[in-house]
Amino acid sequence: MSVIDYIAENETRFLEELKDYLRIPSISTDKEHAGEVARCANWLVDHLKGIGVEHVELHETGGHPIVYAEFMEAGPDKPTYLIYGHYDVQPPDPLELWTSPPFEPEVRDGKIFARGATDDKGQLFAHLKAVEAHLKINGTLPVNVKMLIEGEEEVGSVHLDPWVEANREKLACDAVVISDSSMYAKGIPSIMYSLRGLSYFEIEVTGPSHDLHSGLYGGAVPNPINELGRIIASFHDPDGRIQIDGFYDDVRDLEADERQAFADLPFDVEAFKAEAGVNDVQGEAGFTTLERKWARPTLDFNGIIGGFTGEGAKTVLPSLAKAKFSCRLVPDQQPHVIEELVEAHIRKVASPNVKVELHFHHGGKPVITERDNPAVQAAMRALKKSWDTDPVFIRGGGSIPVVATFAEVLESPTVLLGLGLNDDRLHSPDEKFDLENFYQGIRTAAYLWDELA
Amino acid sequence: MSVIDYIAENETRFLEELKDYLRIPSISTDKEHAGEVARCANWLVDHLKGIGVEHVELHETGGHPIVYAEFMEAGPDKPTYLIYGHYDVQPPDPLELWTSPPFEPEVRDGKIFARGATDDKGQLFAHLKAVEAHLKINGTLPVNVKMLIEGEEEVGSVHLDPWVEANREKLACDAVVISDSSMYAKGIPSIMYSLRGLSYFEIEVTGPSHDLHSGLYGGAVPNPINELGRIIASFHDPDGRIQIDGFYDDVRDLEADERQAFADLPFDVEAFKAEAGVNDVQGEAGFTTLERKWARPTLDFNGIIGGFTGEGAKTVLPSLAKAKFSCRLVPDQQPHVIEELVEAHIRKVASPNVKVELHFHHGGKPVITERDNPAVQAAMRALKKSWDTDPVFIRGGGSIPVVATFAEVLESPTVLLGLGLNDDRLHSPDEKFDLENFYQGIRTAAYLWDELA
Repeated sequence: MSVIDYIAENETRFLEELKDYLRIPSISTDKEHAGEVARCANWLVDHLKGIGVEHVELHETGGHPIVYAEFMEAGPDKPTYLIYGHYDVQPPDPLELWTSPPFEPEVRDGKIFARGATDDKGQLFAHLKAVEAHLKINGTLPVNVKMLIEGEEEVGSVHLDPWVEANREKLACDAVVISDSSMYAKGIPSIMYSLRGLSYFEIEVTGPSHDLHSGLYGGAVPNPINELGRIIASFHDPDGRIQIDGFYDDVRDLEADERQAFADLPFDVEAFKAEAGVNDVQGEAGFTTLERKWARPTLDFNGIIGGFTGEGAKTVLPSLAKAKFSCRLVPDQQPHVIEELVEAHIRKVASPNVKVELHFHHGGKPVITERDNPAVQAAMRALKKSWDTDPVFIRGGGSIPVVATFAEVLESPTVLLGLGLNDDRLHSPDEKFDLENFYQGIRTAAYLWDELA
Repeated sequence: MSVIDYIAENETRFLEELKDYLRIPSISTDKEHAGEVARCANWLVDHLKGIGVEHVELHETGGHPIVYAEFMEAGPDKPTYLIYGHYDVQPPDPLELWTSPPFEPEVRDGKIFARGATDDKGQLFAHLKAVEAHLKINGTLPVNVKMLIEGEEEVGSVHLDPWVEANREKLACDAVVISDSSMYAKGIPSIMYSLRGLSYFEIEVTGPSHDLHSGLYGGAVPNPINELGRIIASFHDPDGRIQIDGFYDDVRDLEADERQAFADLPFDVEAFKAEAGVNDVQGEAGFTTLERKWARPTLDFNGIIGGFTGEGAKTVLPSLAKAKFSCRLVPDQQPHVIEELVEAHIRKVASPNVKVELHFHHGGKPVITERDNPAVQAAMRALKKSWDTDPVFIRGGGSIPVVATFAEVLESPTVLLGLGLNDDRLHSPDEKFDLENFYQGIRTAAYLWDELA
């Protein structure tokens, strides 16, 4: 029997096992559920041993435990891959909006509905079942496989980074495979090969040392909101291009074939506008919407406050105005460089009559895994074999911090093999996972080990 | 005996009477003090009758009562003047910061300390004592005098406007005299002949219909804070000149002699900067600080809020940003015209991709009493006689709404004869009134009736 036949023959059992996994309310944000989170980690340990992965470790972290496993019998001349996933889930509230209870998985219309179905229990489980199929049919895996499954992804992976750093050698690998994101669309298998990074700022502008009466002082002293407005406006030109000296210096231009590939993707701008609730799209001139959100850097204000914000009118000339803003960064921009450029820009444009303070919040580097990376190419072949259609390359506009951690600490590229769909309602009621994607995901993961070998 | 001799002879008694008046805690903002406010109104009625003003009326308003009095025996061929003042006071809190209790008046170093000493009991009382002196010495007044003394000035004069409108004929006069403001400085008697008006706006800018993730949408949709920043910045050019089409069309230029008069006033810019707590003054190019705050229109933001304003960082692309801003207006700008111009400007500069809503709060017209107005000239002569120095013309940067009411409803100019000082701490602990100003004020008011006749 082939690995693929084994998968087909066991689909029903795989689904029942996934239901067992989904029944555990491993809600990491809720202290009262800590016992359930621990039970889920132990369930995984037992399940991994049950499918034939003998080397399984449970690591306490100070928060929720990390499950680590490895199967190294392919030998030192074979490549090694790390599968990352998480077994914790978001809280299910508001409960009354669920069609069926969040921890009583129910299949309807070819989808399984439960909290964690797509984020990330179902997607990770596909990899476990592919490992099982290889071990049952071949008694081994064609490559060495390590697994890192954390229980704190939904609470910011607070203990993961130090653990990865402390276990750098244990985790050494040729590439990381993560299934914790979405395909471009139903029936369009995809590899996400780049994510944007982030620089996050807070600015405080102080004019007078205390609030003043706008009648007695207005027109004769600097107003911090007026001045902050000037600073906000200074960041973009009318073409939506960011006007910070040097800001684009490290931006890697989109290659012609990337732009063509994005242009070839089905994209319904009206649907995008409706989803965002905007009159029209708006952004940097000369780029499409997909290019703007995937491959161009941004500067967006996230919040602002100053002066009188209550009901009615108060003729105050305020002392202070402050705002938060952030840049989404693209390869090869570096957060620390962008911080310096933003600071220099503000020093240049701000009135000398106001006091301007700039604080830096966390930053994150953008990541890109070259499309010709062997692991990426292997994943593309595996996708094509299982889906019988050409997979596409996509990028992501947000950040997945763990990807940057793996790039920095392990110096390993990551293959983002999303099995979810954009309408899977992760973090919301009626979260679901498409069963076709589940079974195709198992097949893709099974093919992947052969292709990687 | 002359009126002036009578005043000199009775200074001590006048002061004791003022203390009685100040002992009444007529705090209009505090419902529990309503009885004391009423007692204060009755004290005034009795006092007016006691000094020989027989026609005194007490009007209920639905709030605190209005005291109205008139002495019309000068006859119909003599001019008629209206004295406006208020007998209510601000709350005294924080009590622990008072050197002596707020309602136990105490004289220290030539000043009387009490809540209401300068705002407005002491200033109004000077006028009453001048009336008394005329009536005692001459048995009459050289002009007809009406008095309107309200008890709700510190709560926005809520019942005054309708009462003035309903009593338009009763209040008819050639000019209004108000002592409820400050002289330019100690020893520099002044007439304030112009006040700025106001237009107050609230703007709401909506981008996406709901908050979005800045990674998934950033760069591809309009950001309401970025857009509001552009609108804020669009209002001024680098010279601090307001860039709204037509904004300055109705602005009455300062006359050469006005600019000279302002320039001749002692003005310590370092003291002004310290008082405002600013690094430097800032405003419309080509104008001095006094000109900017007295005679030039402004556009100042009063408050702003939008997006995430809590601690830390949240990568939200917000749906909504809103702000409050207001223009101080100068003669002959009209609030309703400015509202139209501001709205047209915003329609012109705002991105069509965001929804912009503009709301109008209250407005107030700027006022100017021509310096050659006979009542103004009479007041200048009276000031010169009592102080034995040349009085100065000043303007005010704020608004005194009742002045606009008198201009509109009674069509009467107002003479602002401020007897206070800028450091009198009105609304604050240790409010005081300079006794030299009190006695000079009585003499000035006494001379004023002769000059007005």
